[in-house]
Amino acid sequence: MKRCGFLLVMIAAVMLAISPAMAQNDPLPSWNEGPAKQAILAFVKATTDQASPKFVPPAERIATFDQDGTTWVEQPMYTQVMYCLEQVQAVVKAKPELKNIEPFKTALSGNREAMAKFTMKDLEKILVATLTGMTVEQFNADVKEWLAAAKHHRWKRPYTELVYQPMLEVMQYFRANGYKTYFVTGGGQDFVRAYSEKVYGIPPEQVVGSAGATQFGYDKNGKAILTKVPKLLLNDDKAGKPEGIHLMIGRRPVAAFGNSIGDQQMLEYTQAGDGARLMVLVYHDDAEREYAYGPKSKIGTFSDALMAEAKQKGWVVVSMKNDWKRIFAFEK
Amino acid sequence: MKRCGFLLVMIAAVMLAISPAMAQNDPLPSWNEGPAKQAILAFVKATTDQASPKFVPPAERIATFDQDGTTWVEQPMYTQVMYCLEQVQAVVKAKPELKNIEPFKTALSGNREAMAKFTMKDLEKILVATLTGMTVEQFNADVKEWLAAAKHHRWKRPYTELVYQPMLEVMQYFRANGYKTYFVTGGGQDFVRAYSEKVYGIPPEQVVGSAGATQFGYDKNGKAILTKVPKLLLNDDKAGKPEGIHLMIGRRPVAAFGNSIGDQQMLEYTQAGDGARLMVLVYHDDAEREYAYGPKSKIGTFSDALMAEAKQKGWVVVSMKNDWKRIFAFEK
Repeated sequence: MKRCGFLLVMIAAVMLAISPAMAQNDPLPSWNEGPAKQAILAFVKATTDQASPKFVPPAERIATFDQDGTTWVEQPMYTQVMYCLEQVQAVVKAKPELKNIEPFKTALSGNREAMAKFTMKDLEKILVATLTGMTVEQFNADVKEWLAAAKHHRWKRPYTELVYQPMLEVMQYFRANGYKTYFVTGGGQDFVRAYSEKVYGIPPEQVVGSAGATQFGYDKNGKAILTKVPKLLLNDDKAGKPEGIHLMIGRRPVAAFGNSIGDQQMLEYTQAGDGARLMVLVYHDDAEREYAYGPKSKIGTFSDALMAEAKQKGWVVVSMKNDWKRIFAFEK
Repeated sequence: MKRCGFLLVMIAAVMLAISPAMAQNDPLPSWNEGPAKQAILAFVKATTDQASPKFVPPAERIATFDQDGTTWVEQPMYTQVMYCLEQVQAVVKAKPELKNIEPFKTALSGNREAMAKFTMKDLEKILVATLTGMTVEQFNADVKEWLAAAKHHRWKRPYTELVYQPMLEVMQYFRANGYKTYFVTGGGQDFVRAYSEKVYGIPPEQVVGSAGATQFGYDKNGKAILTKVPKLLLNDDKAGKPEGIHLMIGRRPVAAFGNSIGDQQMLEYTQAGDGARLMVLVYHDDAEREYAYGPKSKIGTFSDALMAEAKQKGWVVVSMKNDWKRIFAFEK
């Protein structure tokens, strides 16, 4: 028995020594075992193994990620739209004459139903009023200040906590293997840049997004400044995504992650290159832990045609319900 | 005497051992000692020393470089314009109907005097014909093929050998100290990307340049492609340089290098940030080894006002004649 006790202690000690090591060896601990996780692991291993025919030289290791719906919650409204609507208060404080003029009046009312009826022209007026007219530094500071206080209606948590833990792990895993990770988002480039480094580890220079122009000038002290102006340079959605990738990166990605018809062309462009390629779509099918939405959603639309294309072309479709052990870092 | 001989041998041995080490310790061996070299060395040391009040965190270490006239020869004509003029032959081969139509007829003639009289509209027609209509990969391959064969009229050497060795050393020195080096060039972004990594160690994603749009589509096999189209997205010159820096990098540089009035706003924008800043202008005053040109030059204009601003604001003006030991790597 003494001997047996000793053996048990030894086994326990070995297991204690091994299990953290094993956990460390799994770069995707928030993923359930399955074909999606295996496809991601196999791709990174093959493209970073010099002996593999699929080896990709470090300089060409570019992985692009959509943001809204792919790496954080996009329902019931894009976070940036929430920002714009809530910034109307600050705009009206500076220009009180807007208080009784639509669409600002409705935006100020906080009436969600009325706001849901905004036309594109209404939204455009709000976007111009809240996203332009200030220096790039002022805008960056405004976004940071808002994000520090604003909370999502459902979870009562900051938007920056509503990032998908499994996708954070994918980004870290790619970077640990010599990949440069980029955002390629339909969202505003300067908006995402305000938090992408802190929240996702993606620096401003690796954020490709819908981009408004800036105008060079001088402040009253003669200091050089850039002011945000209402002129769209890049609509980084659908065909605009590969076009934006070429403009800002100048290399074709070898891996791309999206979640909607807005990402279709980015995935097609990624796949059309030579050698190993990984195309991934996050599928929102978890109404309980997050949302389940598909062809009928106003945003983040996942059409039947997109699902058919994914199957036909061998894209990886990630079921949030089945493939993800947990969705947010705050879940245990 | 024997003892003395031994001492001499020892001294010689020590000197032999030391001198290569000393040479290795000078990161700018092609620079003459002087205030320009000292300013560059002092800036990098101060911004990378954690104990210095001028310390810049690694993530913010962005250095931007103009290309034409700052890191390679721009006279008597921008290399990219030479490319476009010489590519007319290939264009006419594909579209023989252009052979007898101006400005293509004159471009084909090779008559330099006649070409020097081209209007902006003539040049625009040639630029559109030679820079658009092909996929981005085809354009990249065309530029590489041309560069491998084309030679500069004066030196009878490839354009890619006409880079300034002292500036290559500066770029390497900055990178060795954790800086990301970017081109911010009035030249075509896709043109410069075709050789920037090989020639300067600057990858495509760190080239900001005048950028034409691309259009997403499919080839006859249904493969996703990007075609270059004649629409200018960014005129990366003068005020367009800081605007392009914000669009593509999203951070204010801490160091910027230029050589002409086209770089003025980039240097002003760089200087307007907080903390340590380095603004450098390369001054072409060496008619013997390269060119001497100033306010009267059609390209690379260095105005009296720019020199006055540089002096007033403490920008470093590099005299190619006095500050550079050698200009090209092929000089001994």
